[in-house]
Amino acid sequence: MRVVVNAAMSADGKLSSKRREQIAISGPDDFDRMDALRAGSDAVMVGVGTVLADDPHLTLDDPERQAARRDRDESAHPVRVVADSRARTPTDARILDDAATTYVLVSESAPTERIEALESSGARLVTAGDERVALTDALSTLEREGFDQLMVEGGGELIFSLFEAGLADELRVFVGPKIIGGRDAPTLADGEGFVSEFPELELADVERIDDGVLLRYSVE
Amino acid sequence: MRVVVNAAMSADGKLSSKRREQIAISGPDDFDRMDALRAGSDAVMVGVGTVLADDPHLTLDDPERQAARRDRDESAHPVRVVADSRARTPTDARILDDAATTYVLVSESAPTERIEALESSGARLVTAGDERVALTDALSTLEREGFDQLMVEGGGELIFSLFEAGLADELRVFVGPKIIGGRDAPTLADGEGFVSEFPELELADVERIDDGVLLRYSVE
Repeated sequence: MRVVVNAAMSADGKLSSKRREQIAISGPDDFDRMDALRAGSDAVMVGVGTVLADDPHLTLDDPERQAARRDRDESAHPVRVVADSRARTPTDARILDDAATTYVLVSESAPTERIEALESSGARLVTAGDERVALTDALSTLEREGFDQLMVEGGGELIFSLFEAGLADELRVFVGPKIIGGRDAPTLADGEGFVSEFPELELADVERIDDGVLLRYSVE
Repeated sequence: MRVVVNAAMSADGKLSSKRREQIAISGPDDFDRMDALRAGSDAVMVGVGTVLADDPHLTLDDPERQAARRDRDESAHPVRVVADSRARTPTDARILDDAATTYVLVSESAPTERIEALESSGARLVTAGDERVALTDALSTLEREGFDQLMVEGGGELIFSLFEAGLADELRVFVGPKIIGGRDAPTLADGEGFVSEFPELELADVERIDDGVLLRYSVE
């Protein structure tokens, strides 16, 4: 399964401000590119931090892309996935609505009542790992479901974990013409951070989009 | 006085790892570009955090560039500047050696014995601000000394402060093909961070250098 990480960051590497409020970093062309990438993916994943901060829907904007997927006997929208070790996704989160199927990846530490609440909300639960989701195992489960391409839309904790586990195959990052600043603001890759053996990328393409630039990397 | 901020960051916006160890982000062509930018600047500034972490020399590498400056009746190396509110620059720091003149920008809160130690080491002291260096006033002092271009080489605290004070005119950032990660790793712009009225940039140029990309912005 190909794992494509996609994000928009400020010129100083931030995904949002220290208040974790959503900030318009991309423009319309980058949003359209992102929608096309979603449409070409079997599943779209975020971390629970992003669900709690932004309540994303993760569905396709463009009706034609939805129709094209239906014409290929696919669901109108890609499957949605939340990496959520302790099953904190609220049952009224938009990501759990009826628009698409949603998987929640949890660990053994998730409280039973939260698991049951998510199952009652229609989510499909995948359990892997003790305290934190074992992403390698959980993504293997998704691969066995027949998913060929998984798009990852953040946040920085999940993106770091994917690089840490060696699971990211591609990184596409739109760099917007803005400074957000803040030593506590979320960045493209947070987590504990690497101190050696930093993951190396190969810059495959550079493209000016909107007022910024899209950098496409493959992970070596 | 034109203030040009120059930095090399990883693809996730980090200047170094959480251990604040120097990491090779740029390649030889970007180092040469940086040396040329230093040579064309009247002064090169860093924050005291960078002095304490990296002990930079901030002189020109290329003897021909030094000779060219001498031919123009300039010093071989640009003046060096440390933003150092509490005068913490060690007297044996490389930035204080005899290779070039060094200004240390301090606040009124700097201990007298530290000021005296720095003056004994040959540094020129500029005092502005109560607790923290008032960068606007301190840079006005440098401008009155006849400096037309100030290059800023980091770190993220100083860069944020310059954007906060509206003093940055240009940003040149080399984005290296590497993930550093870490919610506590230094980023291009740290400090308190903006929560509204984010400084807007204009992307002037995109150029592939070494294995990465150089983004040149003017500050709007």
